[in-house]
Amino acid sequence: MALIVQKFGGSSVADAEKIKHVAERIIRAQIDGNQVCVVVSAMGDTTDELIDLAESVSSKPHGREMDVLLTAGERISMSLLAMAIIEQGGKAKSFTGYQAGISTDSAHGSARIWKLEPERIRKSLEAGEVAIVAGFQGFSFENGDTTTLGRGGSDTTAVALAASLKADVCEIYSDVDGIYTADPRIVPRAHKLAQIDIDSMLELSSSGAKILYIRAVEFARRHQVPIRVRSTFSADAGTLIYTAIEGDNMEEPIVSGVATDDTQAKITVIGLPDRPGKAAEVFSVVSESGANIDMIVQNVSTDENHLSDISFTLPHSDRHKVVEALKAKQADVGFQSISHDDEIGKLSIVGAGMKTSSGVSAKLFGALAKAGINIEMISTSEIRISVVTRADQLKEATRIVHTAFELDAADTAIVYTGTGR
Amino acid sequence: MALIVQKFGGSSVADAEKIKHVAERIIRAQIDGNQVCVVVSAMGDTTDELIDLAESVSSKPHGREMDVLLTAGERISMSLLAMAIIEQGGKAKSFTGYQAGISTDSAHGSARIWKLEPERIRKSLEAGEVAIVAGFQGFSFENGDTTTLGRGGSDTTAVALAASLKADVCEIYSDVDGIYTADPRIVPRAHKLAQIDIDSMLELSSSGAKILYIRAVEFARRHQVPIRVRSTFSADAGTLIYTAIEGDNMEEPIVSGVATDDTQAKITVIGLPDRPGKAAEVFSVVSESGANIDMIVQNVSTDENHLSDISFTLPHSDRHKVVEALKAKQADVGFQSISHDDEIGKLSIVGAGMKTSSGVSAKLFGALAKAGINIEMISTSEIRISVVTRADQLKEATRIVHTAFELDAADTAIVYTGTGR
Repeated sequence: MALIVQKFGGSSVADAEKIKHVAERIIRAQIDGNQVCVVVSAMGDTTDELIDLAESVSSKPHGREMDVLLTAGERISMSLLAMAIIEQGGKAKSFTGYQAGISTDSAHGSARIWKLEPERIRKSLEAGEVAIVAGFQGFSFENGDTTTLGRGGSDTTAVALAASLKADVCEIYSDVDGIYTADPRIVPRAHKLAQIDIDSMLELSSSGAKILYIRAVEFARRHQVPIRVRSTFSADAGTLIYTAIEGDNMEEPIVSGVATDDTQAKITVIGLPDRPGKAAEVFSVVSESGANIDMIVQNVSTDENHLSDISFTLPHSDRHKVVEALKAKQADVGFQSISHDDEIGKLSIVGAGMKTSSGVSAKLFGALAKAGINIEMISTSEIRISVVTRADQLKEATRIVHTAFELDAADTAIVYTGTGR
Repeated sequence: MALIVQKFGGSSVADAEKIKHVAERIIRAQIDGNQVCVVVSAMGDTTDELIDLAESVSSKPHGREMDVLLTAGERISMSLLAMAIIEQGGKAKSFTGYQAGISTDSAHGSARIWKLEPERIRKSLEAGEVAIVAGFQGFSFENGDTTTLGRGGSDTTAVALAASLKADVCEIYSDVDGIYTADPRIVPRAHKLAQIDIDSMLELSSSGAKILYIRAVEFARRHQVPIRVRSTFSADAGTLIYTAIEGDNMEEPIVSGVATDDTQAKITVIGLPDRPGKAAEVFSVVSESGANIDMIVQNVSTDENHLSDISFTLPHSDRHKVVEALKAKQADVGFQSISHDDEIGKLSIVGAGMKTSSGVSAKLFGALAKAGINIEMISTSEIRISVVTRADQLKEATRIVHTAFELDAADTAIVYTGTGR
């Protein structure tokens, strides 16, 4: 008997009809011979509505109380889903983060999981029940207060539970049916991947792909949890994210997909003294302001003044505060000026096969150059190359690169190996 | 420094503006030198909306899951109220029933409080915080599951906490400003009582007055918790429900008020053998059907067949099932027939002074007779007389009795003794 963790996002349980449909799906998985643990998000727009309420009584809602408020959303969806399963003849029990044994640190709004002790979940599964766990929430191991895991928290809950319960697979259900070679809204010829290795998925998630939150993918990678991304509203097998090469015939694709990100801005610190420690000073100011930076490029100046420029990218939403923080320290750090650019786009190609293939970057740069698209920044990892372009060229660049790497639907760069269903 | 428990009902926290207003009121009570523990209900119609949701996924929502669902309502209101207090410069922390140490039995939907261990509440109050507790909810001492206390549960939470914390007073806030001598919608000349003894309040609550749930009043009486009923939206001192005669000058009013109840139906079991144990057989059938009965009248028949009739009243909603249950046992119990009457009204006069006054019932019956209103059933306690009339005569009867006992606004049957504020 297999043990499956199934996670249903907010759009999958947005109303009573959808909840009943999800209940049916869960019961079917049980009838197929599986133990089923379900992680559920708040219904549809509930979380946004609760945030609106909070902002209507407080200009800066208190972190502890915000977590109490937001976790009401999952209480509602999990109990309704349990009722719906029971109504359809199944057995089900819902559990809060506390009841599921998900203890965290006390960082309200972005708590990290401390320990998982899902004893009640194990008992519930052994009793033949569908164990339904509230996503996104835990409790502080210090004081028992309710905490939330932050953005993508329900994905993290699901993967963490799958790891702890030693589940055979963690299925992430939403309204998209899998991982595509590129965003189909940008690249009409993008196609769904039957599977992808988890290292490549991690790079895709960190390069702007919105399907799975990077934190959940990191957790799955560390704990070797296979994930299947699939649609609540179709029988399609979706995309399997595998954690290890299984079998003989599996050849890793050179490039699995193209990710795009139009949420970044660029800041350039100009005329920084070219001395050891100066870059560190810049980034300690950035770090103190609480911003997450992404790409960094330093150009050592060749002029006689020994000055250099540093450019880096970060989310639009952090740009203003970082520019202000740096300006406040301009005299201390000793740079000449600062500029920023909100009109950039980031494109990344990702693939586990890049490790062993040469010529990938040459092909990428060549395709873009041929189309007259200028590359402003480059960063690479073992299995990813990212470039920054003008924002208004991002979509065109994506389509060109998708074609150049033979990812278009009729092409065969990807090795299809079946779904392992 | 006094310790006050303040309970705010759903209409008091129905929207963001009202929550901010309540926050202001609470802060003022703290500034006046009180420690303040607050019990809060779900916002406005939240509970009804959640019930609708449950009924849209399940024809008979599961008790355990219904409790998980409904308690989401108080999570929302309590966290919003805490945020609003913090926003206005106060200190506040919200607590679930579990965190407040309210353990109950496992009767989902109508759990009884088992034990109160409000350690976290005490610490919060000592730290100068407003401790905000979710009304209506607790946790099963058997398995830690979420439970709810049933109708009027938030009043019960407030009174129980006041008893456990040894509060000086339990203030119950709603959109009505106190206890009236009669329902002002029926008796325009009804007036607000400055105070009333808790025995009389208990009789009023059990005779149809909707202001306070009888269970909370019983709890307050047993634990000697003074209650003040007042309006969230005015500075009026409301009505003090006192638990013991204090001082010398307080004279108990003969009749404090007139309660009406149009939610009862009457069932008559006709031709029951006049033998010991036969009445018990009837009421064990009634009891097994789960109905709560109110008044009982038995007329011993004078005919040679030694048959008697028994009439009793019970909520309309229980009438059908009780009639069916009795019909099913007709042969076993051996009565001749059964009749029912949904068109009855119940009127009660209540007052602690009735214990020591004679002539009260004569005055009541005389006033009704003079107006041509027939009395169908009578039941009495030490401080209450209830009569059943035709439903369509109930309002007229109430006005007549209110006048007969000199309760009309300009009259002075009530001894006003100030508010003790």
